Amino acid sequence: MKHLLVVAHGSRRAASNDEVRELVYQMRRHNQAYDRVDCAFLELAEPSIPDGIQNCIDSGAEEVIVLPYFLAAGTHVVNDIPDLIRGKQEEHPEMVIRQVGHVGALPGMIDLMLKAAD
Amino acid sequence: MKHLLVVAHGSRRAASNDEVRELVYQMRRHNQAYDRVDCAFLELAEPSIPDGIQNCIDSGAEEVIVLPYFLAAGTHVVNDIPDLIRGKQEEHPEMVIRQVGHVGALPGMIDLMLKAAD
Repeated sequence: MKHLLVVAHGSRRAASNDEVRELVYQMRRHNQAYDRVDCAFLELAEPSIPDGIQNCIDSGAEEVIVLPYFLAAGTHVVNDIPDLIRGKQEEHPEMVIRQVGHVGALPGMIDLMLKAAD
Repeated sequence: MKHLLVVAHGSRRAASNDEVRELVYQMRRHNQAYDRVDCAFLELAEPSIPDGIQNCIDSGAEEVIVLPYFLAAGTHVVNDIPDLIRGKQEEHPEMVIRQVGHVGALPGMIDLMLKAAD
């Protein structure tokens, strides 16, 4: 069982958090690679990242891919998210919990943006 | 002459602004649709969005496509950037200055993210 967890910053503005949830809902509909796709938030919205990872584990995941929904490799991507993952990894050494590149650095981003105005 | 202007929030962290500049540099290399691809920043980095649009005009653009490098349709995307565009549009009524969807809402984003962990 392989789960994808999209982790966003979280906002005081409920509509921004809902925009992330809607994106994840659309991802689920198009998904063929993962047994489950969910989201979690660094702050200001629920579930937290540790709770999001725990939900994956509780529902049977053996591998959790954590995808930071961030444009820049700032301290959240470089320090905060890895720290939270490390904490859950220590609690569950049998799990594979793996952070992949943040959205802003995904190789397809360049083509996606160049096609934006078509 | 059609120019693409990628507009980011801007950060106190120079590396984040440089990450945007590097992305735009890569876009230039892959670009076939625009006569020029540049970036501008809402705050905290240079050039500003009005200056970025003006640079396009000064270098011969007849059409400027403004692409918000934002994940959420918050007040920056919905109010601030349109206001700045409107200001330049009023100064230059002969120009076409057009804002397109923010990065988080681009249709290809879902597939891009689903492929992130491949």
